[in-house]
Amino acid sequence: MRIACIVVCIVFLFSGLQAEEGMWLLNQIDRLNLEQQGLKIKTTDIYNPGGVSLVDAIVNLGGASAELVSGNGLLLTNHHVAFGGVQRASISADDYITKGFFAATREDEISAPGYIARVLLEMKDVTDEVVAVLKGIDDPVQRRRAIRAKIQSMTEAIEAGREDISARIAEMFEGRQYMLFVQQSFEDVRLVYVPPQSIGNYGGDIDNWMWPRHTGDFSFLRVYMAPDGRGRKYDKENVPYKPKKWLKIATEPLREGDLTFILGFPGRTNRYRTSYAVDYALNHLYPRSIENYKEMIKLLEEKGRENPVLSRKVAGFVKGLNNSMKNYQGNVDGMKANRFLQKKQAAEKELRAFIEKDAKLKSQYGDVMDAFADLYSRQLSESERNDILSAFGRMSGTLPGIANRIVYNAHQRSMEESERDPNFSEKDIDRSLQRLRFTYMSYDEGVDKMLLRRTLLKAGELRETSPIEGLEHILRDDASVEEYVDRVYGKTQLSDMAVVAKMYKATLDELSASDDPLIVFALKLYPDMEARRKADEKREALLSDLSRRYIEMIGHWKKSELYSDANGTIRFTFGKVSGYEPRDAVYYKPFTTLSGVIEKHTGNVPFDAPEKLQALHADRDLGRWLDPVLNDVPVAFTHECDITGGNSGSAVMNARGELVGIAFDGNYEALTGDWEYIPDMQRTISVDIRYVMFITEKFAGADYLLEEMGLR
Amino acid sequence: MRIACIVVCIVFLFSGLQAEEGMWLLNQIDRLNLEQQGLKIKTTDIYNPGGVSLVDAIVNLGGASAELVSGNGLLLTNHHVAFGGVQRASISADDYITKGFFAATREDEISAPGYIARVLLEMKDVTDEVVAVLKGIDDPVQRRRAIRAKIQSMTEAIEAGREDISARIAEMFEGRQYMLFVQQSFEDVRLVYVPPQSIGNYGGDIDNWMWPRHTGDFSFLRVYMAPDGRGRKYDKENVPYKPKKWLKIATEPLREGDLTFILGFPGRTNRYRTSYAVDYALNHLYPRSIENYKEMIKLLEEKGRENPVLSRKVAGFVKGLNNSMKNYQGNVDGMKANRFLQKKQAAEKELRAFIEKDAKLKSQYGDVMDAFADLYSRQLSESERNDILSAFGRMSGTLPGIANRIVYNAHQRSMEESERDPNFSEKDIDRSLQRLRFTYMSYDEGVDKMLLRRTLLKAGELRETSPIEGLEHILRDDASVEEYVDRVYGKTQLSDMAVVAKMYKATLDELSASDDPLIVFALKLYPDMEARRKADEKREALLSDLSRRYIEMIGHWKKSELYSDANGTIRFTFGKVSGYEPRDAVYYKPFTTLSGVIEKHTGNVPFDAPEKLQALHADRDLGRWLDPVLNDVPVAFTHECDITGGNSGSAVMNARGELVGIAFDGNYEALTGDWEYIPDMQRTISVDIRYVMFITEKFAGADYLLEEMGLR
Repeated sequence: MRIACIVVCIVFLFSGLQAEEGMWLLNQIDRLNLEQQGLKIKTTDIYNPGGVSLVDAIVNLGGASAELVSGNGLLLTNHHVAFGGVQRASISADDYITKGFFAATREDEISAPGYIARVLLEMKDVTDEVVAVLKGIDDPVQRRRAIRAKIQSMTEAIEAGREDISARIAEMFEGRQYMLFVQQSFEDVRLVYVPPQSIGNYGGDIDNWMWPRHTGDFSFLRVYMAPDGRGRKYDKENVPYKPKKWLKIATEPLREGDLTFILGFPGRTNRYRTSYAVDYALNHLYPRSIENYKEMIKLLEEKGRENPVLSRKVAGFVKGLNNSMKNYQGNVDGMKANRFLQKKQAAEKELRAFIEKDAKLKSQYGDVMDAFADLYSRQLSESERNDILSAFGRMSGTLPGIANRIVYNAHQRSMEESERDPNFSEKDIDRSLQRLRFTYMSYDEGVDKMLLRRTLLKAGELRETSPIEGLEHILRDDASVEEYVDRVYGKTQLSDMAVVAKMYKATLDELSASDDPLIVFALKLYPDMEARRKADEKREALLSDLSRRYIEMIGHWKKSELYSDANGTIRFTFGKVSGYEPRDAVYYKPFTTLSGVIEKHTGNVPFDAPEKLQALHADRDLGRWLDPVLNDVPVAFTHECDITGGNSGSAVMNARGELVGIAFDGNYEALTGDWEYIPDMQRTISVDIRYVMFITEKFAGADYLLEEMGLR
Repeated sequence: MRIACIVVCIVFLFSGLQAEEGMWLLNQIDRLNLEQQGLKIKTTDIYNPGGVSLVDAIVNLGGASAELVSGNGLLLTNHHVAFGGVQRASISADDYITKGFFAATREDEISAPGYIARVLLEMKDVTDEVVAVLKGIDDPVQRRRAIRAKIQSMTEAIEAGREDISARIAEMFEGRQYMLFVQQSFEDVRLVYVPPQSIGNYGGDIDNWMWPRHTGDFSFLRVYMAPDGRGRKYDKENVPYKPKKWLKIATEPLREGDLTFILGFPGRTNRYRTSYAVDYALNHLYPRSIENYKEMIKLLEEKGRENPVLSRKVAGFVKGLNNSMKNYQGNVDGMKANRFLQKKQAAEKELRAFIEKDAKLKSQYGDVMDAFADLYSRQLSESERNDILSAFGRMSGTLPGIANRIVYNAHQRSMEESERDPNFSEKDIDRSLQRLRFTYMSYDEGVDKMLLRRTLLKAGELRETSPIEGLEHILRDDASVEEYVDRVYGKTQLSDMAVVAKMYKATLDELSASDDPLIVFALKLYPDMEARRKADEKREALLSDLSRRYIEMIGHWKKSELYSDANGTIRFTFGKVSGYEPRDAVYYKPFTTLSGVIEKHTGNVPFDAPEKLQALHADRDLGRWLDPVLNDVPVAFTHECDITGGNSGSAVMNARGELVGIAFDGNYEALTGDWEYIPDMQRTISVDIRYVMFITEKFAGADYLLEEMGLR
């Protein structure tokens, strides 16, 4: 197979890549020289297709990561990963977030609704079968659609007849490779031990992203299955899941310099983007979004000051805007500080020169970089207009967003399958309907009107240069935008959820007959929205094609083993336990300690260490979890593994494949880590397994869990 | 001499005191085992009464410290010490603060108005002569007055006939010792080289108190004298001062662990306070002041938002309040974090037990601690009322403060000398008159009324428990405080500076005839103010007496060499160059570097490194100032010396007595350092002499200064 070959066959030159960079596919790990790095087990002990290996103890938990630690389905993950389940379990019972949850016996374990634990059954390269459908198709959009259809039919065939089996075929290296992952799903996940928030979320938002960190970010859950071994929803008859493999808790102390490795499910990285993509993000997308969000936050906060009820209603929305804004700002700051764009540009100059001087490569790839430049320059020219159209999702108010969704549903249904948005699905409509209740919880007419008005005024400013035909009837009208918005909200019925629920399933004809002004609005806007969607689909197809060829170029150039960008599939990463120097004259050590928890204690959330924890510290009642070198209980540590969002809850193992920690964050200094791995700065932050055990044994008194894990 | 004897004669037990703690008098340094600490010169090279030593190169510059570095009066101090002079020199010329100042030749040097350089001529113990006057006087107040008068007559005798000679007799160990310091003053100090603010104040308020630090906090000045060697004001005929001794710039690189010592003029410490004083500050004075300042800042900021002109007017006042508030808050936080009160209490318990078990000591000192307790408990009971009275200085508005001063002046003048406030002096009235212009610059009627109203309302709340007789006519009135304030400001003439200037010299009779409502107000309030002043004088006399006995108790108990609290007199302190661990998992290294300056650069004040500095860094044009171990130019360093405010600009010397740096700050983690020296945490922050030389040579191109300092 030609396409996959470069990945597999390239001579492995270690010098080409930093030892610790890389989120590796499992079938790459025997090419990573791990023995030389200090690995004390065989790579087949980690991943062994057809046999049993550590991978069998690794669980995908709702997009995040978790690991089995006993033969009875006991599961460890982060407190913040279990948080949603704990929250939902608290609605009808006690406040388990604040107090924590402790099942004294197996019977006391309670359901963590909404969680699905997925265990990997099989993984294989299916590139040949998938790309076979491309024969004779040249148009990039049609190629993408063909691949999509092929993948759908392949996965449906595997899933047929087994509700607990799910298949996914994931694109690697922008389509150079396709990997099949078959998983078994278990929808009965229960709470076993969750520490109080004053341990599990100690430091809260203030310490988020930060090192030194003192968060006991762990929780114990348990996976249940039907007595016949199938996965199913919560049922009293269900029994604990019996895994093929579970992780052993390390008993030798972890030390600075020790090798660690992680198995988990990193979500998304951008490591193979061109300088044009970086330029677009750094100088256009991020600053524009920051500006935009800042303005919205200001407006929402002003409105909120007038009205405390409203303030609570939109709190989640504002928090989300704030979070994104901070993340974007962190990326902008980081990229600037690291001169990331300049480095990318310099590297591309070398890459271009390398391609230029080989006639064959030049004929194959000579056009790629200019095509990228062209693509991003066109994207930039359309960006202001596209921002307006995108804003009609949520950013221009709840009701306009719903109206557009209703019209979109009806239009898509009325179309031939081959013309439809490939993302359209009836399943999605159902899910969206189920979420309507939450959507309306944060609806406020005043805020809605303000947001719609704002977007329309922005559209008005673009009328000369980039008009949006479907808005002309408003902007051209004699009546001002202000009056239009008042009129629309005075008449629309969409604030009634029952009306909307019906309209979600309405046909185009039924909608055309409606005189609801927001439906009229959305029908007029639809042609612009659809044209934009089609343009996006085409751009993405071209970008994907170019990106695949770009990675091929890098393969030829670097001649070293490459890893595919993260995409939520299981990955392996390794690196040493080590501190770092965040700035001049400052050194961060790799371990924090229980004394540090007490040092940060102020008595106020999020620095409100429980009294019992303070007493254990004061009495030096640390049991076997005291590290003689630190002369304290280690709480968290930093290491050079390469992770991102989705890795939360991942098992961190030592050279012997024993569990030494649970990954839960990256450090602030490497906020741009999704774009670029900086060896001196990028660290994974993990809670030390000794703190997990110390809290479980000495603080919670859950000795039986330690016994279950084989510690006594 | 009995009293001084304990200080001198106690057996020196090194274990009793941390090596680095202590601001030592010069006559104590040969008892500090400095050779054992690594000192490579003799203690007589540092201080040699009658001979020549390093002390002769140390200069008191307007209360701060400086050092002579050439035979032609070249003086090094901090940028922030020279700041006022640079500012004043900038008024009629260029903006030397922003751009810096560089005299290309000696003729280009310009006056730094307002600066007085004082060189020590003689220092001696005059305890016997001073305390002789106490014979037969028992009343503590009279004893203090007698000492004061004696000191005044002794110093006046020395100063007689020489305008450039000033004498000071300083009380040490709360009156156990009196030291005479005779100094020669030079009022002609000129600017030589001042780096731009973007070097000299790099990091500004944000980095203030902080380590790691990257401030090039130095300036070169020159001291001039009359051709006959006397000190005098600026005169064209003046010539550079020829010191007996000047410091040699170190050429060997300073390293972690090296011994350093400092000669300078620390201002004020509270190292010998009782737990009662700590309790009063920590739990009453500081929190009350913080609350009070916070409220005032809020009020002033609210007013300022309405009116930008006003906002600028009160900016200085608000900044001052903010500074004090932050300092108090830092002290409260630090004392709590270090459990300072608890430690003091525990130590006092031991001290009491030690005194109790020796019958002689018990009879001498058995009453001391209880007397302290009593004194502070009385102070506390009067504190709310005293706060109100104190507030009529400045915190209740500019005009009421001026009115009280006018009435005070007239009253004091009318009294017998023996009854007068010992702090009263005609000189002071003149100085205060000269400053009136500045006082009025920040005057605003609206703010003034708000402040007076606020204090009166507070006084109203105390009417039941602690009435102030002189305010009863307002608070008892039917008219509300609001109306009173409006009426007063509607009629008073005190907003006219010319009126006030005349009233400053008015007699009591003249004032009694005035119908200015603020003069009427102050006349009615005066008896309360005077009674409070008398009570304070008595309390201070008692406290001073108790404090002297408390130090004697500590002397008996500790049997180790003690140092007197700082009081602006010249002191010696030593300690190693060393980093520290500010919190769990964080280590601060002892040296910052030029790369750190560039790392902090954002282009915005206060992180706006000059382009030329950036270029020197980028081109690695570091000359001989590159440290091979750091592979960079060191900028600042931390060491274990024990300093406080007033030490700014002090010479930092190495084991060979060569200049290695200039002290300019303490670290945030030791903000409580004036109360307690914590060896693991307290550090002096000094600018490295290599950065001073690098900037002077490579950035400013002032090679001639290096030549003058003997470097070529």
